[in-house]
Amino acid sequence: MTSPVIPSDVAGCCSPLDGGVLDDEAAVRLASMFKALSDPARVKLVSLIAAAADGEACVCDLTGPLGLSQPTVSHHLKLLTDAGVLIRQQRGRWAYYRVVPETLAATRRALDPLLAV
Amino acid sequence: MTSPVIPSDVAGCCSPLDGGVLDDEAAVRLASMFKALSDPARVKLVSLIAAAADGEACVCDLTGPLGLSQPTVSHHLKLLTDAGVLIRQQRGRWAYYRVVPETLAATRRALDPLLAV
Repeated sequence: MTSPVIPSDVAGCCSPLDGGVLDDEAAVRLASMFKALSDPARVKLVSLIAAAADGEACVCDLTGPLGLSQPTVSHHLKLLTDAGVLIRQQRGRWAYYRVVPETLAATRRALDPLLAV
Repeated sequence: MTSPVIPSDVAGCCSPLDGGVLDDEAAVRLASMFKALSDPARVKLVSLIAAAADGEACVCDLTGPLGLSQPTVSHHLKLLTDAGVLIRQQRGRWAYYRVVPETLAATRRALDPLLAV
């Protein structure tokens, strides 16, 4: 498991995928973002949370649509939170999750230069 | 290993990460694209090929900058080619690789809607 990537790190660190300028550290961080999204269940979780009312959802909202157990969903949510794709807020009994747009924007920026190839 | 994703599939299949509209098949395909890019060596390979003269590179150009053996680099190139991120053309002794911009454009489009969250 790689160390957590917080959004400000992500936004600041990621060189575009367009040159020898991509150093080892940037490659590791960028790959860790892609790895966080490299599982179909995690892609669906991000999709569901982004589409949720008020842009947030708790585990209790997500187990049904995914058809997975709460511990499995919580595990995927932890990986996404560690990678900076989601943020987590505990309120009473449940933890609520939101998408961090900056993380996905940084990922998108890293792909931009290749579109002109 | 997932089945190969060819660029036209990718461009056509991938629902944005913004709703319950993301069906299981689309989630699997999108995750497989992210998985192809989820390794630092593969991120660096894409970066190097995109920046290469004429937008193409052979294994012989790539082993040095990566500091990896030719079989290892060839393995990573095969995964990227199977995922539709690269295309491969054999010319004489060497295989040459190019980035497929459509694949990365489709990946980028899948991230777009989240930027407005």
